[in-house]
Amino acid sequence: MTKIPYRYYLSEDEIPKQWYNLRADMKEQHAPIINPGTGKPATVVDLEPVFATKLAEQELDNTTRWFDIPDEVYEMYKVYRPSPLIRAYNLEKYLDTPAKIYYKFEGNNTSGSHKLNSAIAQAYYAKDQGLTKLTTETGAGQWGTALSEACSYFGIDLTVFMVKVSYEQKPFRKAIMETFDGKVIASPSDTTQVGRQILAEDPNNSGSLGTAISEAVELAVTTENCRYVLGSVLNQVLLHQSIIGLEAEIAMKNLGVYPDVVIGCAGGGSNLGGLIAPFMREKIVNGKNIDFLAVEPASCPSLTRGKYAYDFCDTGKITPMAKMYTLGSGFKPSANHAGGLRYHGMSPILSKLYDDGLMRATSYTQVPVFEAAKTFAKLETILPAPESAHAIKGAMDEALRCKEAGEEKTILFGLTGTGYFDMTAYAAFNDGTMNDHVPTDAELKPGFDSLPKL
Amino acid sequence: MTKIPYRYYLSEDEIPKQWYNLRADMKEQHAPIINPGTGKPATVVDLEPVFATKLAEQELDNTTRWFDIPDEVYEMYKVYRPSPLIRAYNLEKYLDTPAKIYYKFEGNNTSGSHKLNSAIAQAYYAKDQGLTKLTTETGAGQWGTALSEACSYFGIDLTVFMVKVSYEQKPFRKAIMETFDGKVIASPSDTTQVGRQILAEDPNNSGSLGTAISEAVELAVTTENCRYVLGSVLNQVLLHQSIIGLEAEIAMKNLGVYPDVVIGCAGGGSNLGGLIAPFMREKIVNGKNIDFLAVEPASCPSLTRGKYAYDFCDTGKITPMAKMYTLGSGFKPSANHAGGLRYHGMSPILSKLYDDGLMRATSYTQVPVFEAAKTFAKLETILPAPESAHAIKGAMDEALRCKEAGEEKTILFGLTGTGYFDMTAYAAFNDGTMNDHVPTDAELKPGFDSLPKL
Repeated sequence: MTKIPYRYYLSEDEIPKQWYNLRADMKEQHAPIINPGTGKPATVVDLEPVFATKLAEQELDNTTRWFDIPDEVYEMYKVYRPSPLIRAYNLEKYLDTPAKIYYKFEGNNTSGSHKLNSAIAQAYYAKDQGLTKLTTETGAGQWGTALSEACSYFGIDLTVFMVKVSYEQKPFRKAIMETFDGKVIASPSDTTQVGRQILAEDPNNSGSLGTAISEAVELAVTTENCRYVLGSVLNQVLLHQSIIGLEAEIAMKNLGVYPDVVIGCAGGGSNLGGLIAPFMREKIVNGKNIDFLAVEPASCPSLTRGKYAYDFCDTGKITPMAKMYTLGSGFKPSANHAGGLRYHGMSPILSKLYDDGLMRATSYTQVPVFEAAKTFAKLETILPAPESAHAIKGAMDEALRCKEAGEEKTILFGLTGTGYFDMTAYAAFNDGTMNDHVPTDAELKPGFDSLPKL
Repeated sequence: MTKIPYRYYLSEDEIPKQWYNLRADMKEQHAPIINPGTGKPATVVDLEPVFATKLAEQELDNTTRWFDIPDEVYEMYKVYRPSPLIRAYNLEKYLDTPAKIYYKFEGNNTSGSHKLNSAIAQAYYAKDQGLTKLTTETGAGQWGTALSEACSYFGIDLTVFMVKVSYEQKPFRKAIMETFDGKVIASPSDTTQVGRQILAEDPNNSGSLGTAISEAVELAVTTENCRYVLGSVLNQVLLHQSIIGLEAEIAMKNLGVYPDVVIGCAGGGSNLGGLIAPFMREKIVNGKNIDFLAVEPASCPSLTRGKYAYDFCDTGKITPMAKMYTLGSGFKPSANHAGGLRYHGMSPILSKLYDDGLMRATSYTQVPVFEAAKTFAKLETILPAPESAHAIKGAMDEALRCKEAGEEKTILFGLTGTGYFDMTAYAAFNDGTMNDHVPTDAELKPGFDSLPKL
């Protein structure tokens, strides 16, 4: 057999033409999302005021296995896809491991991350429905950048509520969103009722994803021809992100290999859910022995320390409630936390898989994650986003376990994006000023106290 | 014929295994570089104290047509190469042009630009010779980043003199170089004699590439086991960068197309020289009718307004002299100039080709260049470096000319890198604070006055 190349690209006509909906193959479905107004499972009619109708349908559809990717979306995918499947030979050598390490790299587009896969889909469905405006929130900025790019392509006006602490720390994220004509507002802001209320209580509130979601939803439902879009957590987003896993699976099959372990970072779950989808099907449907590992930051440990409970998706408690692993919508990660992966909850699909024992989870503090990032950058010539570096750290530790055990496992991990907009965090790591604070139980308590009493 | 894909990648085993030395096929050679101490053509012995010996040999070799790429360099190339050849369908459609536009994208690696191609080669030859330290200069930061990456890979200590104005405006460039363990010093600095002298005359001197070169060379020649490396201008750099053009030519042949026009941005000439090399051979050797266009900034117009004369490569006048199109080593681009392409001179090879009428040149001011960059980013999902955007603007104008003339020309341009570290410039463009100052003849005079009197 010829040696497997460092970088393997599918040909353009091998890019999957359908998204895969893992729910159609799950033995048990996650609990339904609840309309807090009625206390009953949300319907498409409930969701339509917030989401484009096709997206609301995708959100609730747990029986359609395959969704055709619309032509306009597929054409745009071809501009930056397929993404490479990379064999981490240099990392393997450095770790001196018998494990074979592969990663699917989604950072090769201007948005710098996998977020573009869903942004294009969501912007397209909005445009197709005749909508002219969208609103969203962004934390670290990856989603806001991707959606600005997608909206500028489809000619949609976009307003992005950016978590204030990120807005101030990352002026360049604002600049790139504005380059794609996105309108960026620091959240909490005085442009919404929920924002004004939060500022009245705490004028120095530095924001959270949950608050930014509340503001974005409020603006969407009070503006004509406008809807809200979200870059993670939702079932529709995991559906669109299945393109990552589908491409990875085709590429691995072409190369004659298959993963024993699939590892991804986990914030809201969009990348992880998309990456694992076709492999999880093999586990569920065909009983394949595949290990799945979610890696999250110790400062925002929704899977490893959260509760599996119904919670609001936003801090203002105006969204539907989902059953998920959550730290409570009132949770705010510590100010020293760099990068994304700062959402209080976790995708309902992933939460269910985790609760059913189909997936493991672990967490790391920041400093070892950045150590892994730096090592990786030197060996593999890609500067990872801090988010992605969690998956790297998980993969490195798994490869070292393989070394100890003498196992030649095949590891696949998701490298979701690049760290060019995270240099402040890298500088803090280089300067030794990054810290590894792990929230105490007392620090987690206010979040849990914010959980709805059902 | 099947439709040409958006992104076309060579397979790993199609990556060229040799660099191409265009000088071996040029009918006339450029004038020799001169040792200012002796007034005679420089020899390998003259250059060895400054450059690694193999690189000094490559610098002066105008007869060897093909150089084997060393195994260690080739292995590293495979980590991030091949780079894609991209068909700009969206840009063509937007311009409504019959022209076919292709671009070779070199930004898909952490250094974010083509500079890595030569950085790896230069770091390797230094290591192979047993050197342990290197010095260099960087302006916008692309070269410093690439060389930090290469040196960290080969275990070499690197000191980078960074033009002070860039150092202050681009703290993130410093952070990424430090992530790869590069030591970054703002130039002019008090660490060298030439730096101290410049600061004594002008304590607020904001630096120039020419000054940073002087400092880097001084440190190299006064430090044991240390040499200096340069990221552009030199023949050796153009040799290494021929990998760009060679890959592009193979890819185009595989696709059954060939360029009528080849366009690149031009600062010191490394990207342009590398991109055009195999195509220029076809023009020189086989008489193929190919148009070559160098695009430079109006604020640093070495080809379009410079003099073809012997000049020093640095401001401190301690380097050899080369005959090139130059604005004089005393030239400093205006403070409003964003991005790279700020070197006072131009590659001797390209200068000769231009003087012989084998290549055209044009210049643009910044605002239209950033307009082109923004349009391109929206259509093609790549945020270009300001440098690269000069080539985009050149290609767009060429495509519009084709539209007027009804010509179905095939255009190839070099997209050298990404603009993630240039968001200050993008923000200035977005805010309307970028200006389009073109140096007056009076402003160019001090530079020309600095030319050596031979």
